[in-house]
Amino acid sequence: MKFSNLFIPTSKENPSDVVLPSHQFLVRGGFVNQEGAGLYNFMPLGKIVLDKIRTIVKEELDKAGCNEVQLSFVTPISLWDRSGRAEDMGKEMLRIKDRHDNDFVLSPTNEEAMVELVKNRVKSYKDLPVNLYQINTKFRDEARPRYGILRGREFLMKDGYSFHSNTEDMIREFDLMEETYKKIFTRLGLDFRVVNADSGAIGGSGSKEFHVLANSGEDTILVCESCDYGANIETIFEDESEVDSLNELSYEQLQEKEVTQKCSCGGKLSFKKGIEVGHIFQLGDKYSKALEANFQDENGKPKAFEMATFGIGVSRLVASVIEQNHDEKGCIWTKNTAPYLVDIIVSNAKKEDELDAGIKIYEELKANGIDVIIDDRKKERFGFKMGDFELIGFPYAVVIGKKLQDGLVEIVDRKTLEKQECKLDEVFEVLQKKLDNS
Amino acid sequence: MKFSNLFIPTSKENPSDVVLPSHQFLVRGGFVNQEGAGLYNFMPLGKIVLDKIRTIVKEELDKAGCNEVQLSFVTPISLWDRSGRAEDMGKEMLRIKDRHDNDFVLSPTNEEAMVELVKNRVKSYKDLPVNLYQINTKFRDEARPRYGILRGREFLMKDGYSFHSNTEDMIREFDLMEETYKKIFTRLGLDFRVVNADSGAIGGSGSKEFHVLANSGEDTILVCESCDYGANIETIFEDESEVDSLNELSYEQLQEKEVTQKCSCGGKLSFKKGIEVGHIFQLGDKYSKALEANFQDENGKPKAFEMATFGIGVSRLVASVIEQNHDEKGCIWTKNTAPYLVDIIVSNAKKEDELDAGIKIYEELKANGIDVIIDDRKKERFGFKMGDFELIGFPYAVVIGKKLQDGLVEIVDRKTLEKQECKLDEVFEVLQKKLDNS
Repeated sequence: MKFSNLFIPTSKENPSDVVLPSHQFLVRGGFVNQEGAGLYNFMPLGKIVLDKIRTIVKEELDKAGCNEVQLSFVTPISLWDRSGRAEDMGKEMLRIKDRHDNDFVLSPTNEEAMVELVKNRVKSYKDLPVNLYQINTKFRDEARPRYGILRGREFLMKDGYSFHSNTEDMIREFDLMEETYKKIFTRLGLDFRVVNADSGAIGGSGSKEFHVLANSGEDTILVCESCDYGANIETIFEDESEVDSLNELSYEQLQEKEVTQKCSCGGKLSFKKGIEVGHIFQLGDKYSKALEANFQDENGKPKAFEMATFGIGVSRLVASVIEQNHDEKGCIWTKNTAPYLVDIIVSNAKKEDELDAGIKIYEELKANGIDVIIDDRKKERFGFKMGDFELIGFPYAVVIGKKLQDGLVEIVDRKTLEKQECKLDEVFEVLQKKLDNS
Repeated sequence: MKFSNLFIPTSKENPSDVVLPSHQFLVRGGFVNQEGAGLYNFMPLGKIVLDKIRTIVKEELDKAGCNEVQLSFVTPISLWDRSGRAEDMGKEMLRIKDRHDNDFVLSPTNEEAMVELVKNRVKSYKDLPVNLYQINTKFRDEARPRYGILRGREFLMKDGYSFHSNTEDMIREFDLMEETYKKIFTRLGLDFRVVNADSGAIGGSGSKEFHVLANSGEDTILVCESCDYGANIETIFEDESEVDSLNELSYEQLQEKEVTQKCSCGGKLSFKKGIEVGHIFQLGDKYSKALEANFQDENGKPKAFEMATFGIGVSRLVASVIEQNHDEKGCIWTKNTAPYLVDIIVSNAKKEDELDAGIKIYEELKANGIDVIIDDRKKERFGFKMGDFELIGFPYAVVIGKKLQDGLVEIVDRKTLEKQECKLDEVFEVLQKKLDNS
């Protein structure tokens, strides 16, 4: 891709309500822009990142045997009345009326619709299990939308729902999804923890959350330094005010708190801040019973489906990557989330030899399967282009400038900002090695 | 893919309000199901087809230099007030109120939001042209939603918007998009016509529609049998009642009507029925003026963007393919829209030799890059599987049955329903030849 062909409106202005680095850099880097309170548009670079994340989520789910569907975003309120959730959901679920004065909602989640879809279509235990998911628009009318796309009202969620003939099989799928989620977050290059989220006993497996570790995270979690145990503090402290006061502490303040508990493995526990990006839940037959969704069991008797449900905040992940990976200059994308891996900066694109050398490297990298963009803009100067590179956060830049006459270019590592001279004909080789090791 | 791993709930029951073949077969074939009036869910097979169409649309647009974005579906009504469309759009645009009693709409189209996105971000004529598109949910609160996903209230639309410094460049892009749309509909395997849709004079190019020819089409178009001229009859007959009465005629009745006009090329004109699947429109500066969206021209003066807009009904295309390609037994997908190209029917999957032979062919086809599904269901009999093949409409089936002991299988062409014996080790070769020629 060429910068001159892609709409990348970077800016030096911060959004007025900015608190978090991801909010600041995603807006300033031309990834997203605000349309209204808690409503965001994805501009071309943001859409590319969103699609990369979406593709990884889909690939891993499909490999695990899940089937993708796409449910209507507007759903009749009658569905929610029947499950009893119309009231429970409160004001976060936005009710609307159509032209005939009939009642609908903007889906905040889709348990009911998914049960209706499977009901009467999966008839026998022989047709089970079934695991259906979608990656689709959701709406939650938060009272105070904030933090950019990290906590918008309209967002992209992966929501999955599995149906089983018995609890054992449901737990098998729950465990499979835990493993699948780990693969997804690992491929995204995230430092994350799986934590127990069920209320009460440590070690329960009824509900697990996936947290991206980030100092700015809204949740406080307790993790073991020796094993992979982790828990949301909500499951540890029974006193709600204690939980609230811990959540209000900054990461730095938290680190000064002593943890009296020990992990059952004997390891030391410590507090971390996390952003919840995934949640998996053993539902049982709550919804299938409420909506009378039965199958015929081995004895020919009707039985309500055992269910589990699995969520990932797909658009939230875009911001989470940046909360975990940024510096004071801008974004630092991970290898599998970067809109492009390499940015070829032609210092002065009006100089024919610089532009030609840039295009030659660009074509070579492209031919070798490296996702590359070339900053071929004639009207922008070098400093501006370097600023865009740092703000947008491509993993590597190749700077073509003065040393071209000696057959040299400079390779810049976005994470360390280290520069390295490189011969023109070794650029691909050097970059490939860096990418392989990253 | 294996049938046993994919949720494909075929059914013999017709939807209660069914009129059109696509509605009947897409519901019965397990592609879609109804969630509410004009609200549909895409089940796994339907989602696969939708994604195939979406991918082709995206590939061709990207090749033509367009940039994909994704706008918020819920938009503030203030945007629509400022353009003056809040009133014009009438009841089809659904107004909603959030928890703070602020007014929003479910986007029926996105001219305003797209102008706002570009405004103040594209500053100079040097940054033009820009062509941004999205493939995203839309909502139009039709008074009488009908015909399944052909005329739903919630649907998937590709809407594109281009911005230019002058009219000539806008027309260049308009022509480029006409060519791009032709490539898209050709790749989808559709028999379609581009027709003039501007009111009044024949030959005007201010607005063009793309119609899939189908006897069930809602629109009546006049096409030339010698050249590629075509026009919506709305542009030909000034008398509205004449247009209405022609639109009410069935395809058969229309064929009996004599056409008195001749094409300017001298060719014979005839009436056809069409389904509108695309519309491109030269907008000029209507929206950029209303929303005060200017750029700096060559003389350093502010000037309103010249715009064009380009739509494709992506979910409607799923139904359109079937309106044009079906028989009394079910769907007949085209090569690039088929959820899978080949269905390997294991007549009796309880017989080990049949299942083994099926899996061997399945692996061979897959290894050779053919999109294949195997009907490995143990509990279904041959007749049921063949019925599903005909209803779902995969282009080819490979039937593994009694003649396996002689080393033979049967290849069935879904379109002609012709059967052909084939040696086990020649299946790939024979299918590849058929696919190459289709």
